Amino acid sequence: MTNLNNTDNLGSDIPVPEVVIQRLPLYVRVLMQFSSAGEKVISSEQLGTRLQMTPAQIRKDLSYFGRFGKQGRGYDVAMLERQLREILGLDRMWNAAVVGMGRLGRAVVSYPGFAPEGFKISAVFDTSNAIVGKTFSDLRVQSISQLTESVKELDIKIGIVTVPINHAQEVIDALVEAGIKSILNYAPLSPQVPEGVTVRGIDPVLSLQSMTYYIR
Amino acid sequence: MTNLNNTDNLGSDIPVPEVVIQRLPLYVRVLMQFSSAGEKVISSEQLGTRLQMTPAQIRKDLSYFGRFGKQGRGYDVAMLERQLREILGLDRMWNAAVVGMGRLGRAVVSYPGFAPEGFKISAVFDTSNAIVGKTFSDLRVQSISQLTESVKELDIKIGIVTVPINHAQEVIDALVEAGIKSILNYAPLSPQVPEGVTVRGIDPVLSLQSMTYYIR
Repeated sequence: MTNLNNTDNLGSDIPVPEVVIQRLPLYVRVLMQFSSAGEKVISSEQLGTRLQMTPAQIRKDLSYFGRFGKQGRGYDVAMLERQLREILGLDRMWNAAVVGMGRLGRAVVSYPGFAPEGFKISAVFDTSNAIVGKTFSDLRVQSISQLTESVKELDIKIGIVTVPINHAQEVIDALVEAGIKSILNYAPLSPQVPEGVTVRGIDPVLSLQSMTYYIR
Repeated sequence: MTNLNNTDNLGSDIPVPEVVIQRLPLYVRVLMQFSSAGEKVISSEQLGTRLQMTPAQIRKDLSYFGRFGKQGRGYDVAMLERQLREILGLDRMWNAAVVGMGRLGRAVVSYPGFAPEGFKISAVFDTSNAIVGKTFSDLRVQSISQLTESVKELDIKIGIVTVPINHAQEVIDALVEAGIKSILNYAPLSPQVPEGVTVRGIDPVLSLQSMTYYIR
């Protein structure tokens, strides 16, 4: 996994822990909320309160990428958001493919939250002949056999897996085979992928299961 | 936040980092997969491969809760799964309420994955008079004004927020007011909650944003 921060104008060559990378989008979101509220400067205390973290954790996370704020002066909201977006690669558009056009896949394709954040669903696939050829949200469903070709042609970098659990591993294998290195997996299984491929699961059950610890 | 592990027969009184708690459900899932495949014993190497972690990280995570395996002998799959379920409070049923019965709320209520894992949606709420009184998946939509009463009456411990972003904070405030300490939030905002309340967000955009770092 490419763990090194190599944004030219920012930071060092220390590998950044994955858990820090996973928090950065939350920082971006909170910064957007503060920005909408007209705030120009934010302290690590304010960030910490919103993210249920200590100010020290916030400062440590950000220190991986260089110096963003001045001691006791807080962070410039707009600048920190811009820099974190650059670090995360959110200063460009990314093409994604959805595999599995059942009820869940159609809901994902029609979700209005992706495009404003720079994620464009450019192609959709299914294994079933009954679904291939249909059109949802202006996208014609292609056969999974066309995956590799379309990934290259459309510069697709992200795969979104919305097939049932019993097909998920084979679909993930096909995405990896096609050169995809970032996979968003809605199937409730923990798939096997080679090194260098990142999978994030969307699974409400896992989230619920990690909360009951605190109330049992 | 209650961070202390106080399962009587297991482990110590060292506070367990939240990130460890969040990984335990993944362990449970992988153990189930191994169990289904007929495996009786699993090594930290095998667990690590499936979870994209090092064997040392696996052993460290589990060490917070006592000793589960013998050096060089691996873990008993069934026993480790049972113990982790007990630690996480997954050896019982939990009642949940869904607030927001638009398209997303209805999809959540009809999702078949919650009940088998011990999460029962016992009540559903909305703020709109146009929706209150309707029935979805055998649940009659109640007015949000009845929230506190129903939470007590039905022993509801988990709130699931499926309202639009502009109503999410007020709904989360109402859940907290009603005594809920575990909230699953589908709205794309980072809400403010008092200490002792845990919120987990389900947000595909955040997951996508934490992967582009590795491919930018």
